[in-house]
Parts: sequence; C-alpha cells; structure tokens
Amino acid sequence: MRDILPSEMLHREALLATVREIFCRWGFAPIATPAIEFKDILLGKYGEDAERLFYKIEHKEKLALRYDLTVPLARVIAMSGNNLPTPFKRYQIQEVWRAERAQPRKGRFREFLQCDVDTIGTDSLVADAEIIALSVKVLDSLGFPNAITKINHRAILRGLMEVSGIPPESEMEVCRIIDKLDKIGPDGVRNDLLESGFNPDKTAGLLEIILENDAEPLSRVKSRCKANPRIDKGIADLQEVIRQTNLFGAPKGKIKVDLSLSRGLDYYTGTIFESVVPEQPHIGSLTGGGRYDDLIGLFSKRNIPAVGITIGLDRILAALIDTGKISERSTQTSVLVSVFDKDFLATSIKLASKLRENNIDSEVYLESRKLKAQFSYANKLGIPFVVIIGKNELQKGLYALKNMKTGEQQEASFEDLLIALRQVS
Amino acid sequence: MRDILPSEMLHREALLATVREIFCRWGFAPIATPAIEFKDILLGKYGEDAERLFYKIEHKEKLALRYDLTVPLARVIAMSGNNLPTPFKRYQIQEVWRAERAQPRKGRFREFLQCDVDTIGTDSLVADAEIIALSVKVLDSLGFPNAITKINHRAILRGLMEVSGIPPESEMEVCRIIDKLDKIGPDGVRNDLLESGFNPDKTAGLLEIILENDAEPLSRVKSRCKANPRIDKGIADLQEVIRQTNLFGAPKGKIKVDLSLSRGLDYYTGTIFESVVPEQPHIGSLTGGGRYDDLIGLFSKRNIPAVGITIGLDRILAALIDTGKISERSTQTSVLVSVFDKDFLATSIKLASKLRENNIDSEVYLESRKLKAQFSYANKLGIPFVVIIGKNELQKGLYALKNMKTGEQQEASFEDLLIALRQVS
Repeated sequence: MRDILPSEMLHREALLATVREIFCRWGFAPIATPAIEFKDILLGKYGEDAERLFYKIEHKEKLALRYDLTVPLARVIAMSGNNLPTPFKRYQIQEVWRAERAQPRKGRFREFLQCDVDTIGTDSLVADAEIIALSVKVLDSLGFPNAITKINHRAILRGLMEVSGIPPESEMEVCRIIDKLDKIGPDGVRNDLLESGFNPDKTAGLLEIILENDAEPLSRVKSRCKANPRIDKGIADLQEVIRQTNLFGAPKGKIKVDLSLSRGLDYYTGTIFESVVPEQPHIGSLTGGGRYDDLIGLFSKRNIPAVGITIGLDRILAALIDTGKISERSTQTSVLVSVFDKDFLATSIKLASKLRENNIDSEVYLESRKLKAQFSYANKLGIPFVVIIGKNELQKGLYALKNMKTGEQQEASFEDLLIALRQVS
Repeated sequence: MRDILPSEMLHREALLATVREIFCRWGFAPIATPAIEFKDILLGKYGEDAERLFYKIEHKEKLALRYDLTVPLARVIAMSGNNLPTPFKRYQIQEVWRAERAQPRKGRFREFLQCDVDTIGTDSLVADAEIIALSVKVLDSLGFPNAITKINHRAILRGLMEVSGIPPESEMEVCRIIDKLDKIGPDGVRNDLLESGFNPDKTAGLLEIILENDAEPLSRVKSRCKANPRIDKGIADLQEVIRQTNLFGAPKGKIKVDLSLSRGLDYYTGTIFESVVPEQPHIGSLTGGGRYDDLIGLFSKRNIPAVGITIGLDRILAALIDTGKISERSTQTSVLVSVFDKDFLATSIKLASKLRENNIDSEVYLESRKLKAQFSYANKLGIPFVVIIGKNELQKGLYALKNMKTGEQQEASFEDLLIALRQVS
C-alpha cells in the first residue's frame, strides 16, 4: 500500500472527474458500498486462491475487506433491488484490497482503485453495445484515441470447442489457457494445452481458427463451421452489438472481432471485450468486461442478467505518465502572489483573493521570508507564475509578473494578469 | 455501515466536486493514504477509549483501519516531508472507520467520509486566516450563506483560567467540560465543574467572563484582565487572524469571537474555530478546527506547526436534504430517448448520442417494451423529459418531447430539443 501525494493525486482527481462526467452523461449513476463486508457474503464467490487474499477483520462478527466491486453490487441488488430501476445502470469507483505481494513497478498494489460500470437487469444487447461504446468514449477522452476494443462471444468459443471435439466440462479450462495468449504466445498456449492433457489434434483445429488474424473472422467461421447453433447465435449477437456500438458513436475501426479473446473469468456468458492500445502493447489491456447473466442471481432467488466493464484507471494513469501525456505537477495553482514585506501582506492577500474571484487558481505566500525562498516554493510545486508587488509598482497600480519557466518578468495591470493567467489553467 | 445509492450519491459527488474545486483554487492539493495502517502508528494517539474502536485486521503484521485523517497525515509528513513543499497545503477526503454503535438517525455511521484541510509547517497566522476564510467560502458555495464561524484562542482560555486560579493541570479537563456547553447548557457546565471538584468561586468567575455574550468580547476581557501575557497574546493573535480573514474575502459579520468555544480535543494550541448555522441550531457544527503545533512533531524529531479544519460533509449533505435545498433524484439524466418499436431503435440510439455530443445528459431506453413501461422507468428515476419518435414525427423531422412533471407534450425540432433540455441540467 502506498500514500498518493499531490503530484499523482491531482492527475487521478482530474481523471476521475472526466470519467464521472461521462458516466453521468450516459445515464450511469454512482453508488458506494462499505469497505467492510460480512465474510459469508464474500466466501465462495472468488475461488479458494482468492479467499487467501482477503483482509480479515478481528471482530465479534466475521468481516473482511472488499475484494472487488462486483460481489458488493450483487449484494446491493439482492438487498435493495426493489427500490432500484430496471435496468439499473450504475458506476462505482472505490478501493479494493488484496493481501498479496505488491509489485509497485508493475503497478500492482495491495490497495487499488477499481472503476466498474454495469447495467443490471436486462439481456438486451443494446446494453452490451452501450457499455462498449461508453468505454471507447472514455478512452478517447482520456487521451487514447487509438485504443482498439477487441470483442468476442463466449458462445462462439464454446461452439468452436464443440466443433473441435473438446468436451463441455473442459471449456473453462481451455478458456483460461487461451486467455494467457498475450503473455505466453501461441506456442505457449499450445504447450499448456498439451500439458493439461488435451488431444493435440482437437486443440490444433481450434487454435488454427481462433489464431488466424484476418479482416472478416465472423464470415470465415460461418463458412467453416456450418449449422452449429451456438456459433450462429454468437455471430448474430456480435454483429448486432457491433452495429449498435457504431450507432452509439464508436467508430467502426475501433471495434475489432478477435476470436482468440477469451477473458479468464468463469462467469462470463455472452459478449466479452477488452481494450488495448496497439502502439503500446506493454501496458496491457486498459478495460475489460462482458456479459455475465448468472452471477448476480447467486444472491437473489431470480435470475438477473448483467453486462459490465472494469476500467483500469491506475493503469491508464501510469500509461499517461509513462508516455509523457501528462506532466509532473504538485499543485493546480497558476500563480503565487509573493509578499514583498510585512507592509505588503494585506495587498498580497487581497490580490490573491481577487484573482480567485476571477477563477484564477492562486495562493499567497504564507510566511515572512525573502523573495528567493518564495520563488523556490513556487519552483518546488511547479507553480508557473509569481506576482511581485513592490513599492514602485503599487504606486503605479501595476504588478510584476514573473514567468518561472523562462525567468522573464513583465509589468502588468490587473487586467493583464487575468489575460496571462487564464492561459495557464 | 451502509450502501449509498444514487439518490444520495449523486448529491455527494456534486458536493465533493464543489469542495475539490475550491480547495485547488486556493492552492490546497489532494493526497490519499491507505485504509490500512500499522497498529503501532495509531496506538497512543487517540486515547484508550478510541483504541477500543479500531477495526483490527488479522494478518501477520499488526494492522488496523484508518481512524481519522490527521494521524495518517502526520505519518506522511514524517516519511515524505523532505519531498513536500513547506508550507504544505493539503486536503484529504477519505473514509474512516470506528467500531462503535451506529446511530443512522443522527447521521452517525461506523464508516464515514472525512474531509480535512490543513497547512503544515508554518506558524504564520496568515495560514490560520486562510483556512478559516476557505471554510467560509466552502459553506457559502454549498448553500449556507448565513453560516457563522465562531473563533477563540486556547491562550485566552488558559489565561482566563490562570486569572481565575484554576491550576494548569486542570486546564484540559475544564476545556472538555466547557465544550459540552451546546449540549448541556450553562447550568449543566456549572454542575459538571462542581461535580469534578472544582472550586465554585473560581469557576464562577471564569464562566461569567466566557458566557457573557456581547459585541466586543476581546475589549471586555482586555479591560477586565490586565497584564496577563497569555491573554494579551491570544487577543493580539485573534485580532490579526480576523483582520486577515476579512482580507481573504470572509465578510466581517461572519466571523464572531466566542470566548466559550473550547473544542474538546487536547491537541489544539492556538486559534480554535467552528462554523454553525444560527437558524438551524439542531444540525450542530458544520466545520471545526484550529492550530495544533505539537501533534505532528510526535512522529518526527523536529517540531512542526500546523493548522487545519475538518469539514463535515455528511452532516452538510444531511442538512441540505433536511431543509429541502436539494431535491431527491436518482439520476443526472435530463432526457430518456424512448424506443417506439424495434424499427426505431437505431434512430433512438443515434438521437441519444447526438444529444450527448451537445452536452445533454441523455440515455436511450435499453429494452423492447411498451411506451408505458418506458415512462415509468423515467418516473422512477426522476428523469424530467422523455423524447418519443413516431412514424409521423420522423417523416417531418420532428420529435415529441414529453414533460414528465406536467404531462405536456410538444413537437420539437432537434434545435428545439437542445433549447428545452439545456434548461434542465
């Protein structure tokens, strides 16, 4: 776990403000759930490996910290579903905790921020298309106009396995192995399938179909695998979703069918999708999600279809810093109003206040120290401008405005200050 | 603990956006610290009563959940202080946890959001004035233009006790009893002091001075208690802080010296302050803070002066809902684009997208259901307008816009829609 200091936190807040604005514009509303859940709610949902990573709390009741945002959502639907609209479109941005080894260099921490957007209570494919188009919009707005969303359908994968003679009970295991494609490559996948005891002839056919990277994978599959109801259903669904994604404003070129996309998680039942930035393959996927029609029902008595996406804000932030798309800065302040000496304090405070009234982010230097110390405070924080008020300037009703990057200094009226400083923020 | 559903969460997000904007405008930068701290960091800082309320975590290391934001701040200063500017102006808005009985009706929960603003590393009174003026600005912006900030100084309280013959070792106990004035009234305070064994003659003099409610309490005290260095220092400090608070933009009438303000917490050393809304006394104080020059030093080897304020966002939100200043709403959506039938789906999706491109918060209805069901979805969420696209309208290039409050329906061009809907958000 780590402290997040202003130089990172300011960017995180800006990022969050952008995504929140987009979510609300599209009709997704925020919810928050407690950090602490009853252990019983969490147990049996993530598998035993995950349960070892729960932070358990010493208390009369058996409690543990939130491990993700999906199980709490399912609990909310079970508890408060009747008070909520159907479909329920929600987003949730909160920390989750996992007691595993932190890998700060890879951006893996024991505490991290999750950002989930889900539509609960409808099996309409319009909901899938909306979620995908929303994520395209988010990535575009955050500075990734070239992001590609790969899309696939669990029914196609399952149909292809059926055609290849892989038994239904092995489908999930094969999915999990295919999911490692990006990490271990085609040969690695082939090896892993072999080592897990799958018949090489059977998996060879499957791999050939899903690894061929052409422009029209759906037509190719359709012509190769005739009259498999699963495959037909999956293809029809995908075509409809893609068409609607375009109507929702996601350009055609940004959505790409990828038959090798399998998403490891067991609970997906329909469309699955994932966004990557082709020119920066090393940063991994920035979003990932799909339709999961059976999970929420575990908590309720009825079946509740759902589709959702996780947006990797921490990874996005790291990618933006990595690629120099955002600059290091420890404050939002555009201008420091320096204090020449005690007699000028009132004038300086008033000027800073007046600048703020004009929507300029400004602060007055708080202590009685030499101008040099005040400049070095501005430099340490990355404040781009300093105003100096001296006796001469004050008599003329002027201020000295110092550009901290170039070192240049100019005389400026209050109006001049506003013009110069409005360009900063 | 509780789930926060959209009807409350939307207001909370709006509130947070406002305070974050103001904090940054004044040069305060955000930080975040982990929910989990080493227990050793937390122990010995809050007193034994508080330590019973820690949520302890079962783990190899001894861990507990964050109890407030001040101790984590002190730890950050001790650990990262050299990388931070001096003075360090930070705000922090995060949850804290206390394992005590929840009283939902009183707005007391085991998990709640704290919002702290502090300036670390300077003993300049300008910092005190800035924090106070900032809180006046925040309350004004959040809908409490009549809020009054009461201000006092620990040195005055201590000087008055000295003058009244109360021994130094009892000062804090007397402060804590006086702090209950709002709850138990003057007679209650008198009783409590008596029961705690204080000499009635000594405390009577003290109470007389601090309870007299006149326009110029500082001049009164000055004329009554001659040549007490503590009182003189406290009065001079307060006068300077108030003068500067005005320069920072807080009107004179909103800052009021109140000699009976004592703030229970032991760690305050200088100015203390608290905001109340006179016309709604039952909601209690909305902010509270003061100067605490000795606390942060507990974690470092050197003394580090500090001044800060806690803004009670949960209480403010409750007060806004209570007084009808904000309305119940479960979405930010201004308009639902209904789907007449399957043939109109594409047209509806495209219209919703086009409206969003024009900054109108809009969503398309996701399922194939009758218009009646779509209207009831809009009503449940409190969406004020629904657009209906029928065959006739489509041929004419027009839309039907239904006002869900009045039931009125009008024909509208796309431009008409924009004009009508821009008035909503």
